[in-house]
Amino acid sequence: MDARSLSASRRGLMHLHKVGTPPKQNLLREFTARVKETFFADDPLRPFKDQPRSRKLVLGIQAIFPIFEWGRSYNWKKFRGDLIAGLTIASLCIPQDIGYAKLAHLDPQFGLYSSFVPPLIYAFMGSSRDIAIGPVAVVSLLLGSMLSKEIDPYLKKAEYRRLAFTATFFAGITQAALGFLRLGFLIDFLSHAAIIGFMAGAAITIALQQLKGLLGIKNFTKETDIISVMHSVWGNVHHGWNWQTILIGVSFLSFLLVAKYIGKKNRKFFWVPAIAPLISVILSTFFVYITHAEKKGVQIVKDIEKGINPSSVNQIYFSGEYLLKGLKIGIVAGLIALTEAVAIGRTFASMKDYQIDGNKEMVALGAMNVVGSMTSCYVATGSFSRSAVNFMSGCETAVSNVIMSCVVFLTLEFITPLFKYTPNAILAAIIISAVAGLIDIPAAILVWKIDKFDFVACLGAFLGVVFKSVEIGLLIAVTVSFAKILLQVTRPRTAILGKVPRSNVYRNILQYPEAVKVPGILIVRVDCAIYFSNSNYVKERILRWLMDEEERVKAACQPTIQFLIVEMSPVTDIDTSGIHALEELHRSLEKKNIELILTNPGPVVMDKLEVSRFANLIGEDKIFLTVADAVSSCSPKQADEV
Amino acid sequence: MDARSLSASRRGLMHLHKVGTPPKQNLLREFTARVKETFFADDPLRPFKDQPRSRKLVLGIQAIFPIFEWGRSYNWKKFRGDLIAGLTIASLCIPQDIGYAKLAHLDPQFGLYSSFVPPLIYAFMGSSRDIAIGPVAVVSLLLGSMLSKEIDPYLKKAEYRRLAFTATFFAGITQAALGFLRLGFLIDFLSHAAIIGFMAGAAITIALQQLKGLLGIKNFTKETDIISVMHSVWGNVHHGWNWQTILIGVSFLSFLLVAKYIGKKNRKFFWVPAIAPLISVILSTFFVYITHAEKKGVQIVKDIEKGINPSSVNQIYFSGEYLLKGLKIGIVAGLIALTEAVAIGRTFASMKDYQIDGNKEMVALGAMNVVGSMTSCYVATGSFSRSAVNFMSGCETAVSNVIMSCVVFLTLEFITPLFKYTPNAILAAIIISAVAGLIDIPAAILVWKIDKFDFVACLGAFLGVVFKSVEIGLLIAVTVSFAKILLQVTRPRTAILGKVPRSNVYRNILQYPEAVKVPGILIVRVDCAIYFSNSNYVKERILRWLMDEEERVKAACQPTIQFLIVEMSPVTDIDTSGIHALEELHRSLEKKNIELILTNPGPVVMDKLEVSRFANLIGEDKIFLTVADAVSSCSPKQADEV
Repeated sequence: MDARSLSASRRGLMHLHKVGTPPKQNLLREFTARVKETFFADDPLRPFKDQPRSRKLVLGIQAIFPIFEWGRSYNWKKFRGDLIAGLTIASLCIPQDIGYAKLAHLDPQFGLYSSFVPPLIYAFMGSSRDIAIGPVAVVSLLLGSMLSKEIDPYLKKAEYRRLAFTATFFAGITQAALGFLRLGFLIDFLSHAAIIGFMAGAAITIALQQLKGLLGIKNFTKETDIISVMHSVWGNVHHGWNWQTILIGVSFLSFLLVAKYIGKKNRKFFWVPAIAPLISVILSTFFVYITHAEKKGVQIVKDIEKGINPSSVNQIYFSGEYLLKGLKIGIVAGLIALTEAVAIGRTFASMKDYQIDGNKEMVALGAMNVVGSMTSCYVATGSFSRSAVNFMSGCETAVSNVIMSCVVFLTLEFITPLFKYTPNAILAAIIISAVAGLIDIPAAILVWKIDKFDFVACLGAFLGVVFKSVEIGLLIAVTVSFAKILLQVTRPRTAILGKVPRSNVYRNILQYPEAVKVPGILIVRVDCAIYFSNSNYVKERILRWLMDEEERVKAACQPTIQFLIVEMSPVTDIDTSGIHALEELHRSLEKKNIELILTNPGPVVMDKLEVSRFANLIGEDKIFLTVADAVSSCSPKQADEV
Repeated sequence: MDARSLSASRRGLMHLHKVGTPPKQNLLREFTARVKETFFADDPLRPFKDQPRSRKLVLGIQAIFPIFEWGRSYNWKKFRGDLIAGLTIASLCIPQDIGYAKLAHLDPQFGLYSSFVPPLIYAFMGSSRDIAIGPVAVVSLLLGSMLSKEIDPYLKKAEYRRLAFTATFFAGITQAALGFLRLGFLIDFLSHAAIIGFMAGAAITIALQQLKGLLGIKNFTKETDIISVMHSVWGNVHHGWNWQTILIGVSFLSFLLVAKYIGKKNRKFFWVPAIAPLISVILSTFFVYITHAEKKGVQIVKDIEKGINPSSVNQIYFSGEYLLKGLKIGIVAGLIALTEAVAIGRTFASMKDYQIDGNKEMVALGAMNVVGSMTSCYVATGSFSRSAVNFMSGCETAVSNVIMSCVVFLTLEFITPLFKYTPNAILAAIIISAVAGLIDIPAAILVWKIDKFDFVACLGAFLGVVFKSVEIGLLIAVTVSFAKILLQVTRPRTAILGKVPRSNVYRNILQYPEAVKVPGILIVRVDCAIYFSNSNYVKERILRWLMDEEERVKAACQPTIQFLIVEMSPVTDIDTSGIHALEELHRSLEKKNIELILTNPGPVVMDKLEVSRFANLIGEDKIFLTVADAVSSCSPKQADEV
């Protein structure tokens, strides 16, 4: 009792240090605040605050079409940068597009279509200045493998194409919906580490697929996993391979890789790898044309349809069995495309230090794909390789995308016939050298160094993609990511605190070996919000710390434990189960007559301790602002004993 | 620069206050430690530590069969307690069992069977002293509704029963497996609040089902939702109801409720509600027998098979389509049964202050149900109502369960024929008065007070069960529980800290209105581990705090912000994405030339900041032990400015 009264009087003196209970909020305010934090964390209406209506209208339009915002300050200097950048990425995208279209089992022109319309739409609605829009390897692969599971891309060309447009349409809808419903944060559930592994796996899978073109193999497996690919490669080694193709392919591949290497070595030669693909296309095409290598079994692109995107509105399946299939595929492809685009957007935004609104970005990408699906495009998004080139060649705004799409327009209108003799081997080589950039080994090593569990996600995604399929890889990535979150909330860390000498701060004795325990007092810190998922664990863990300490104390015949201080600074929230756990803890401590003392509970926790009467149960005067205060309040009783 | 060098020299002086990097652990040790915390949090091998082999053997046996542990200290005094308790719960369970069996669409004797074998097994293996084992209302309902979806319980009696045993078998396997694989924590994912709602909903559904017996309705709906039940009740009002049945039912129901009320009012009359059911069974049976009310349409139990459990090993489906169905139903029923039993076990354990090992408990329950499934029992578990009675009538050990099962044995052997004339209305009345106890309104109110989100889970589960079905209710409960966890890790709280006057502690200025901001410095606390799921949000939130503060400062023309201190005490862990976010934060702060300072990162975080080189990036001397230190290191530069 004396201790209690004493500490009470003590509290009288230092009433300023009392733990504050926050001013009671009414339910509605609290609720809206929570919703705001969840869905409108970026406070999109900030600029609209106290503005005249007319201004609000302008701001609204600018919010939907950022071009009206940055367009007003656009000038020739910026245009020069955009022009150069636009031409560079155009030269890079044209051959890539043709290759990626093959990856999605579509005719070459659809790749080019997808580099014409979507970039234009994005230029008006997008908020990233550096992203380069168009078809990308991973999404093309994903789309190709998922679509071809439903319809055979070569026997039923028309249906396949229609399903592709349907998927693209729903991909767009998904993206726009996520953005519009402010659910952008959902894509954050795919961890960075998982993406690294997924990308690397996809890159390898894509490279393997290119062996078909590179070795000139005719009957190639439909599977994408490494085993069946290798099997069909070696199975064809004697009769399947075509040496002329291999010659062309390998020589140009090495040329491309050398160019890449030069670009990496010396930043100011970044344009070398950028234009290398176009050069090799031109050279090889010319070479095949004069030598008529196609007669010697070198496969060529053959005819690419001339002219710009035909409409495809009436080709989308809005009914029938394919509607649902398209929807399913669209959602998956849309989410992957989104993840890639947003990741790119954020990276470059933070390099040039401007904010991009994730949700607004999603609406832009969604709108772009919806329009795309109606103009014979398949899912387009931001491309890692081209965005990097765009950035390095000094783009200023999304205008570089417009330039690119103009070049693509001209290509479609006039020079597609020239691609007739382009050997597939070259496209294969170009794709291989492009996706090589998706394998980021240093990043993987860093992940391993920083967080082993992350690395498991990374490796799992990688192996899943390489040995099974893209979808399985994705599934693994997501599952592991979730498992990690659940583990985090189920098994929070706890720590024993000791006094850091010559200070009155108390810290984890494992981290600060010099910190010393206070005799007769056990100080435990709980490092997580106490929720139903961990409340029971937390309770039992604390009791186990206590048991261990009591054993140790008995062994060392030091004063017995009389006070258990639970440092709650990191406990940011608590729920019904948590309160129950505390009550049970208190009960079993009473049995051992050990006093339970809490320090520094946060506003939410304090509030809940009050309403649940737990504060009264242990006594208001048993809740302190700092561990130091709490300890000083125990010490006198200590003195009597020792 | 001067600030940096200054703070550096400062750190020289107070080197003791340097943030400690924990002694490097090797990977394996770290990993095993994590695994141990996750699966062996309760350290089951503790007692085995440094014991001779012979002792270890004994301990091992005692670990599997706790009876050998408490049995040795068993005495007559304890037996007296157990005897009384055992007889009391027996008198309560016999009528309940018959009723619950009907709830599961099984013949009455199966209810009694399930109160004979399982309690015996549990008495040997279980670690709870107060739990009363047997069939329970909720599980019976769940089983009945799920099984009858697969097989019609009245047209295909035999198959139905076989499927029931199959489900019971797999329920047992599931429970034992969870315990054996140390996955006990999985059941913690069903939040306390959700259980409250679910139980209340189930209680109401069960009560509604009893209207069939209570009103003597012949053709009753098979659905369990309130709408269709009410529909078939009022549909039968004119021709379906039987006034004699209603008379008996209602009169005895009121008798039971009065008894319950007495028991509640005065704790020492707890036995009144406990024996009331048996009394009303005897009275009503006698009444029907002499008046031959069964001829006037009062439905009676008819014959209950005499004799104890026949074997049912060869009746379990180990192949065919029903194997999978049984498995599915078994898993669900097993989990629910487990949740109920463990909840009861923990409650009473904490009342008498003894530990029960969740995982060991699960193995015991699992074994009991597996054996049960082979002896014509259906899923048994701990019953709320009977355990409470058991506790109040002063049980000492699981022996009370043995007593009960002996009484049930005698009942099966000799007096089942006497139940022939027992009217179903009585059983209905007994069940209604029993499940009434599952509706815990005060608890629901408390949940509402403490945590609104929890209440949503509670209400969702309740409405789901009442208006749709038990499974839907469960689904809602689990979903909402998970949603809550995800929300917690996606949108962690952040707070602005200020200096509490006359102290050098810094606290949330919303909680401590008297706390004052330090001019030129913004102190933000992040209240959660920084993971991929929230890293981006955290970064942007901090930048938004900064933006707000800068606006405020400009308005009040106070010194501009030059230092951003991120208080990381609550940040217990960080992953690759988290590090990235910090790097991006640092980059955009550099642009504004604001210095980033960290305080008190935990051991794990500190370690990761080191390996990821982030510590070097911002400078080791920018990481402090306390906010106070950090502030003092900034102040000089401050001085120059102001």
